[in-house]
Amino acid sequence: MLIGRVKGSLWATRKDEKLNGLKFLVVETDEYNGPSTTIVAADNAGAGLDDLVLITTGSAARLSGNQQEIPVDAVIVGVIDSVEMDE
Amino acid sequence: MLIGRVKGSLWATRKDEKLNGLKFLVVETDEYNGPSTTIVAADNAGAGLDDLVLITTGSAARLSGNQQEIPVDAVIVGVIDSVEMDE
Amino acid sequence: MLIGRVKGSLWATRKDEKLNGLKFLVVETDEYNGPSTTIVAADNAGAGLDDLVLITTGSAARLSGNQQEIPVDAVIVGVIDSVEMDE
Amino acid sequence: MLIGRVKGSLWATRKDEKLNGLKFLVVETDEYNGPSTTIVAADNAGAGLDDLVLITTGSAARLSGNQQEIPVDAVIVGVIDSVEMDE
Amino acid sequence: MLIGRVKGSLWATRKDEKLNGLKFLVVETDEYNGPSTTIVAADNAGAGLDDLVLITTGSAARLSGNQQEIPVDAVIVGVIDSVEMDE
Repeated sequence: MLIGRVKGSLWATRKDEKLNGLKFLVVETDEYNGPSTTIVAADNAGAGLDDLVLITTGSAARLSGNQQEIPVDAVIVGVIDSVEMDE
Repeated sequence: MLIGRVKGSLWATRKDEKLNGLKFLVVETDEYNGPSTTIVAADNAGAGLDDLVLITTGSAARLSGNQQEIPVDAVIVGVIDSVEMDE
Repeated sequence: MLIGRVKGSLWATRKDEKLNGLKFLVVETDEYNGPSTTIVAADNAGAGLDDLVLITTGSAARLSGNQQEIPVDAVIVGVIDSVEMDE
Repeated sequence: MLIGRVKGSLWATRKDEKLNGLKFLVVETDEYNGPSTTIVAADNAGAGLDDLVLITTGSAARLSGNQQEIPVDAVIVGVIDSVEMDE
Repeated sequence: MLIGRVKGSLWATRKDEKLNGLKFLVVETDEYNGPSTTIVAADNAGAGLDDLVLITTGSAARLSGNQQEIPVDAVIVGVIDSVEMDE
């Protein structure tokens, strides 16, 4: 899974109808190292702007919520309370 | 999912026959960060040149449209109206 | 699989309920080359801070332990005793 | 999918017997951006040296040809006639 | 698939029991371009130190040998005799 920070949201009127009702958040990953990358994740955890979130990618993303047949490849599965790092 | 901008299209006469009828667009991803990368995505959203699009990759791509048995690993699932970023 | 070093842990109260009971560790991968990247992996090997671990990613991660229906994409499948490299 | 250029081929006598009969080509991807990367793809499109090809990766690769049970993760699914890019 | 060179091996006493009996090799990939990356692959081809090998990743890795239920995401599927590159 990836750690990311919610940086925004996006709207798409014209889209695959299977995506209707999903909320898409723009997330920057890899805060702790190197250059960040931007991905879009469906939100299954009620995340808000600037929240630090846990993201599951790939086929596993479809196991969160009721999305087995939905074309999503990244889902926010948790809002992170704290990260304890050994520096 | 990835955010990308449609930069072009491609033609391939000699190809896997399962790909017949699909429209392939060349998309540059990761506009908001670092160096962009180029991928080819099948278009399921009626996207046009310079459109900002939402792309699903991996096994999830085959769940968009009627493509369960088609060898595609990236599909445009939406045309993005707006992205609101917290800078 | 990836080699990584356990650098920390994370807590998320608000999360997909399927993740309840899993322990999530923050791992830095690719110690032997270039810039490291940070991923979060569920721990199936009893790993501790600073342990060098073996991580399985993607759909294979769900085959470790009893996680076939759990939305995880990275799992610690072993604690590494030694790596012998030919330099 | 990725755009790549065929740069060579490889031979492996000692290999998984499921790979017998497949032709493996060495392909450089991402010609249009940044540093290229080298992958090996099974050829399902009759590609030749220096051809520009379309490559499907991941689980989708096994849906091209009759390869459902073959351990391949990248397949050339088309020979590209032309790419029209908006520069 | 990836081309890599076997650089070492690793031992892990404490590990997922499904991994018992597998031999794990440390492989550096992408010799022909840019910075190499290190991955760990199960060996299904009898590879040795310094051998140039062909590696299958992702869900396809589990189709090599008898590993359908084993949590591995990278497998050495062949020992490469020669690579002919068009420079």
